[in-house]
Amino acid sequence: MTVSLDDIRRAADLIRGQVVRTPSAHSRTLSRITGAELWIKFENLQFTASFKDRGALVKLSSLTAEERARGVIAMSAGNHAQGVAYHANRLGIPATIVMPATAPHVKVRQTEEHGARVVLEGDTLAEAEAVARRLVAEQDLVLIHPYDDPHIIAGQGTIGLEVLGDHPELDVLVVPVGGGGLIAGIAIAAKALKPGIEVIGVETQLYPSMYAALRGEPDACGGNTIAEGIAVKNVGKLTLEIARELVDDVVLVSEADLERAVGLFLGVEKTVAEGAGAAGLAAVLANPERYRGRRVGTVLCGGNIDARLLASVITRNLAREGRIAGLRVKISDQPGTLAKVAGIIGAAGGNILEVSHQRLFLDVPVKNADLDLVIETRDPAHLDRIVQNLAAAGYTVRRLNAYREA
Amino acid sequence: MTVSLDDIRRAADLIRGQVVRTPSAHSRTLSRITGAELWIKFENLQFTASFKDRGALVKLSSLTAEERARGVIAMSAGNHAQGVAYHANRLGIPATIVMPATAPHVKVRQTEEHGARVVLEGDTLAEAEAVARRLVAEQDLVLIHPYDDPHIIAGQGTIGLEVLGDHPELDVLVVPVGGGGLIAGIAIAAKALKPGIEVIGVETQLYPSMYAALRGEPDACGGNTIAEGIAVKNVGKLTLEIARELVDDVVLVSEADLERAVGLFLGVEKTVAEGAGAAGLAAVLANPERYRGRRVGTVLCGGNIDARLLASVITRNLAREGRIAGLRVKISDQPGTLAKVAGIIGAAGGNILEVSHQRLFLDVPVKNADLDLVIETRDPAHLDRIVQNLAAAGYTVRRLNAYREA
Repeated sequence: MTVSLDDIRRAADLIRGQVVRTPSAHSRTLSRITGAELWIKFENLQFTASFKDRGALVKLSSLTAEERARGVIAMSAGNHAQGVAYHANRLGIPATIVMPATAPHVKVRQTEEHGARVVLEGDTLAEAEAVARRLVAEQDLVLIHPYDDPHIIAGQGTIGLEVLGDHPELDVLVVPVGGGGLIAGIAIAAKALKPGIEVIGVETQLYPSMYAALRGEPDACGGNTIAEGIAVKNVGKLTLEIARELVDDVVLVSEADLERAVGLFLGVEKTVAEGAGAAGLAAVLANPERYRGRRVGTVLCGGNIDARLLASVITRNLAREGRIAGLRVKISDQPGTLAKVAGIIGAAGGNILEVSHQRLFLDVPVKNADLDLVIETRDPAHLDRIVQNLAAAGYTVRRLNAYREA
Repeated sequence: MTVSLDDIRRAADLIRGQVVRTPSAHSRTLSRITGAELWIKFENLQFTASFKDRGALVKLSSLTAEERARGVIAMSAGNHAQGVAYHANRLGIPATIVMPATAPHVKVRQTEEHGARVVLEGDTLAEAEAVARRLVAEQDLVLIHPYDDPHIIAGQGTIGLEVLGDHPELDVLVVPVGGGGLIAGIAIAAKALKPGIEVIGVETQLYPSMYAALRGEPDACGGNTIAEGIAVKNVGKLTLEIARELVDDVVLVSEADLERAVGLFLGVEKTVAEGAGAAGLAAVLANPERYRGRRVGTVLCGGNIDARLLASVITRNLAREGRIAGLRVKISDQPGTLAKVAGIIGAAGGNILEVSHQRLFLDVPVKNADLDLVIETRDPAHLDRIVQNLAAAGYTVRRLNAYREA
């Protein structure tokens, strides 16, 4: 094994006082909801809001004086960029971050505020990666790999020391897997301290790269996921080796599981998880039997979620819970009809969010129209009552599928 | 003074181990944004997600055996209900919570899960209050007032002990004011420990009850606020007396300030604040000169915000930041025009969220139409570029005001 428990202990000594010693708290309510005894490690409370601070600091601290003087480079529009930029700045190491030209200005600005030089080039992450490799050659910079590096792995492994230091009673750790740096470090620490502990990795169904690699199967990665932090096509060489040795299982979660988990963190724990950060909870929600009654630790590994995406997840979860619903009401196209329908919904306490009429399509007779409504209700029973009241008033009502699922 | 520092110290001894000892952390990023040195007391991390746990436990513990046997009653659809229900259950005291009949099922269920009997009666909070008073008389229950009670005030005052224990260097405390229980308790503790500290209360402009009462002016309370937790028309008798003695100033914040503060807590601190919980930060944002360079402590007093409201605040903040914008483009009503406009926006990296055509109104010539677009951009400069590109292609573009301000 290229990384040992001692390496991780040294990493822990090194980062002490420079990286947040995040809390790992028992969640009574999430335990009740999942049926497991659940502990959450809040890595979203790091300064750059993800665990990447740990590995970045350990890696940067390992550089020689000569390497520090040359400066470092990383390619990322995400958490790795922030972690490297922030700690390089603290250590006085010049940092270059390559991002795709389309990166949001807010991410560019945040990275620049950490003192990094941002190079905006390439249309995609893959193109930006090529740019980074070119700059490494041209400008003699030191590339900081996001996961396939023993120092990065040792840094992320400090989370395992902290979690098992706080809660030695845990039976299972459920850890998000992107390139595998986080789970590799945690697995080394956890299995060394407590050989009987189970370590389970979580990937999104859309990017099952570690899942496939452990089985020697070809992966089929692709698509838009809410968990872009773990949407990694190629796991590391080192991290795969460690996972093969120490990770008991890798499970896959759906986008719906991830969205539900983000919503629960927000609603129950009052904390912001990005999609990847919620993957551990999503895995427990997706397969509660596996964890029932067991002491489960999971890492909420990051909280950097785009604001519009977060708003959209919240709204979609309301649709899932039946608190926002679409109804199609057949109406006659004459004065006063909307007032009548709206009156029935309002009297029952429903809140109309959107209205549209559909008159042109030929499956509706010329004197009729379809009235599409998006309404907010208190709960599914309330929605049922509103539908019944409309039916009782003689309207034909069809429920439309979940609000804006697309 | 009816409540003393010793009362608050006794309250602190009483609640130790039964109520969360919440962290109060310095926020580097919010300090940079506001220009003040800002510490946040995270009372949204209480089990029921607000500071109300403290006063409720102290008050319930003060009851005689005879009163406990009779049972308690509270009227609230909010944080007070949760605090009373939760701690009454822990102490084995029967609790009745009166809520308006229109209370969301999720709040009813949460309260019932704490073991309370929920009475749904009355259309408004005022009617529910009348119901509560009737039940007090009919069923001989003990009414737990949300703020105008020495035990409640002593309980909330424990926050002052903790904040000044953690950070004796603070110059100012900025505290949300509803009925005044929170600020009364905190002011007693803080002024006793550090007489020179400034204590500033915050109300929403829509409910300036303490602000008016301290000036002997009639208040003009009313309207829909995001900060329903501090939308209190009548401050307490006791709390007003204490505020008159110990509170240095009460300031008012706008709904826009509150929304921005909720957004910053979410985006920067990765934590969920309800409107009232964000009032302290809102006050600092609204008047940064007053706090610049000073050591400011503020209480994030609650995190119970309706999910749809939170989603709406996030989206509105994006509109404020110029990341979601409405454009009205004058087009000729002929095939291919939408494709051309959409092509220009797409090529510039803008994301079209909504489209509608307006053809019927007579201020548009018959062969023309208005095309209304809601688009998402990376930042205001990106929006400017898109508008310029449309203009360069010959389109007349008007910016519509912020997305869904109504």
